[in-house]
Amino acid sequence: MMIAGPYLLYLGHSDDEVGIKTSRGLAVFRRELCVGEFRHHDCPLTLSLPRMGFPEAVTAGAKTLVLGIANAGGMLGADLVRDAVAAIEAGLDVASGLHNRLRDEPALVDAAARHGRKLHDVRDPRPDIPIGNGKPRAGKRLLTVGTDCSVGKMYATLCLETGMRARGMRADFRATGQTGILIAGGGVPLDAVIADFISGAIEQVSPARDDGGWDLIEGQGSLFHPSFAGVSTGLLHGAQPDALVLCHDPVREHMRGLPHYQLPGLKQTLEANLAVARLTNPAVQAVGVALNTSKMTREAAERLCADTADELGLPCTDPFAMGVEPIVDRVVSCFGA
Amino acid sequence: MMIAGPYLLYLGHSDDEVGIKTSRGLAVFRRELCVGEFRHHDCPLTLSLPRMGFPEAVTAGAKTLVLGIANAGGMLGADLVRDAVAAIEAGLDVASGLHNRLRDEPALVDAAARHGRKLHDVRDPRPDIPIGNGKPRAGKRLLTVGTDCSVGKMYATLCLETGMRARGMRADFRATGQTGILIAGGGVPLDAVIADFISGAIEQVSPARDDGGWDLIEGQGSLFHPSFAGVSTGLLHGAQPDALVLCHDPVREHMRGLPHYQLPGLKQTLEANLAVARLTNPAVQAVGVALNTSKMTREAAERLCADTADELGLPCTDPFAMGVEPIVDRVVSCFGA
Repeated sequence: MMIAGPYLLYLGHSDDEVGIKTSRGLAVFRRELCVGEFRHHDCPLTLSLPRMGFPEAVTAGAKTLVLGIANAGGMLGADLVRDAVAAIEAGLDVASGLHNRLRDEPALVDAAARHGRKLHDVRDPRPDIPIGNGKPRAGKRLLTVGTDCSVGKMYATLCLETGMRARGMRADFRATGQTGILIAGGGVPLDAVIADFISGAIEQVSPARDDGGWDLIEGQGSLFHPSFAGVSTGLLHGAQPDALVLCHDPVREHMRGLPHYQLPGLKQTLEANLAVARLTNPAVQAVGVALNTSKMTREAAERLCADTADELGLPCTDPFAMGVEPIVDRVVSCFGA
Repeated sequence: MMIAGPYLLYLGHSDDEVGIKTSRGLAVFRRELCVGEFRHHDCPLTLSLPRMGFPEAVTAGAKTLVLGIANAGGMLGADLVRDAVAAIEAGLDVASGLHNRLRDEPALVDAAARHGRKLHDVRDPRPDIPIGNGKPRAGKRLLTVGTDCSVGKMYATLCLETGMRARGMRADFRATGQTGILIAGGGVPLDAVIADFISGAIEQVSPARDDGGWDLIEGQGSLFHPSFAGVSTGLLHGAQPDALVLCHDPVREHMRGLPHYQLPGLKQTLEANLAVARLTNPAVQAVGVALNTSKMTREAAERLCADTADELGLPCTDPFAMGVEPIVDRVVSCFGA
C-alpha cells in the first residue's frame, strides 16, 4: 500500500471519542506524519494538532486526507463525501478504513479522476490470500489477545515494538485492522477477509523469518465475543504464536456492543487462548498482561497491575502509561535477547 | 433462491469421487429432482442416473444444469465453460457452487443473455447479513460438529431430518455449504461470508422459532482444522445449539489437506466443541456420534459403533447406513418429542 504522507487527519463533525480512534491512533503513533486535523465547528474533539482547512493543509505539505473516523455502521455519509470531494479539489488524496468503500461513491470517483488524485480503501484485502496450511514456519511471533474487542491490543503491540527495538531487538508490528494498517503502512484488514481465509491471511502477513527477530501481531476481537470469536480463532491458528500477551480493560462493564454478555475472567481467557494456540504451536507461552488503565488513577492502576501479576504469575503493566519493560524482560528470559 | 428443477447433474471429465460430491449429494438426497447425469467418455464415475446430452435432458424435462463438481481450486476451466455454454444454448439454466462465479465468465453471461437463461452462483452470500448478537432466541437447534472437514456432517444432518420427521417431529435442515444449499433450496454459503459476519450469518439462517420444532444446522470444518477453525467457531456461537452430534470418519489418516496434522480424539473434539458452544448456550448437550463407515465391513462398523458408544456414553451410529434411531431416541429423552 502506497499512501502518500504526510496526512491531514479528519474528525469532521464527530463528538464520539471511540469513533475517532483511527485518527487518534495516527496522531499518537505516527505524529511525525500528521500535519494537522480537520474538524467542523461543532466537533468538540481534538488531537492537539494544528486545525486546518484543505487548502491550508496542502500548503503545509499534506498529501492525503485520512478519514480516520467510524460513524454508525462504518458508512460514508453525505457530509463526509462533500468534505472528501473538497479535499480532492484542493489537491489531496483520500484514504479510508470505513466499511463502505470510497470507490463505490461516484462523486469521489469522479472528483479523483478529474483532479488526478488517488482513493485508498484500506479495508480491501489483497486478492491473493491463500488458505492457511498450519505448517510450522521459522521466526518468533508474539500475538496480543483480549478479554474483549477494543481493549488496547493495538496499543500494546505498538508499544512492544518500540520497547523491544529500544533494547536492540528486531521486532516488527504486523497490522490486522484498519488503524494499524494506516500506522504501519501495510497489513491485512482481517475483519474484511472471506471466512475460509482467516488463518491464511495471517500466515501471509507474518511469513517465516530467519533473522532472529520477532513479528508482533496485532490481535482482534476475543474468543469470548459471540460476534467475532471466529476471527480471533483463525488469527490464533494463523499466527502460530510463541508468545501471547493478554490485554484487558479493567473498567469495561460488558462485552463491547453486547450488554447481555459479561467479560470473561483473565485466567479463563488466557487458558482458552493458550489451548486454541497450541493446535499450531504446542510450545506457546503467555508472557504478560497489558491493562488499559487510562480511566484509573495512577495509584489504583499500579495496585491493579501488581495484584494481577501476583494472581496470574505474569508481568503486568499498562504498556502506554507505564511502559513494556516487565513484559520485554519476560520475553528475553523465555526466548533470549 | 429460485433454481428451477428438475436438474441435469454434471460430472464432466471428473475422475475424482470427492470432486463430484455436490452432484452426488443431489442424486442421493433429491433424486426425485434429478433427471439424468452428463459425463464425457473419459469420466469413469456415475451416479446411476440416465446418461444424457443437453438436448435430451431438455426433452426429458430438465430445467437446470448443476455444475456439482469441484476441481482444483474451485475454478471454472475452459471445458466446463464450453459445456455450460452448450447447455444454455440447448435451453438450460446453469447453477454452480464453485468459488469462481458464473457471472464473472463473459462467455456464460453472453450465452445466458442471448438465450434468456439464468445463471445461479450458489456461493454468493446474501448482502444483508448482520453482525451476530448472541442474544438467546426461541427454538431448539441441533448442530453437527466434526473431527475434520468432509467427515459426513451434511449427510448426518439430512438423515436426522428424515428420521425426526418420520417420528412426527418438526425438523428442518439448515444448509451452510453449497451442496446443502442446492439440496435444501436455500441456506448460507458460510465459507464465502466475510469474517466479521460468520456468527451473524447463522443467526440469520436459523432464526427464532416457536413451533416446538428443531433446526438441524449443517456443521462446517473442525475446531481442530488449522485452516478453517474460525468458521467452525463462529458457526458454534451463531447456532446457540441445544444439541451437538459429533461426526467422524474412522479411516481418515490425517486432517484433510494437511498430512502434517493428525486427527484429534473424539472425546477431545467433543469437549472442545461443548466448551465453545457454552458461550452462547450454557445448556448445550451432546446427543450422539455419527460415523461414516462406508469403507468398513458391516460387522466392523457395528463393532466400532458399539465401542464408541461405550467409550463416550453417547449413542453412536452410521446415520446413512444404519439409520439415526439411537440419536433421535436420545434427543427425545433429553428434550421431549
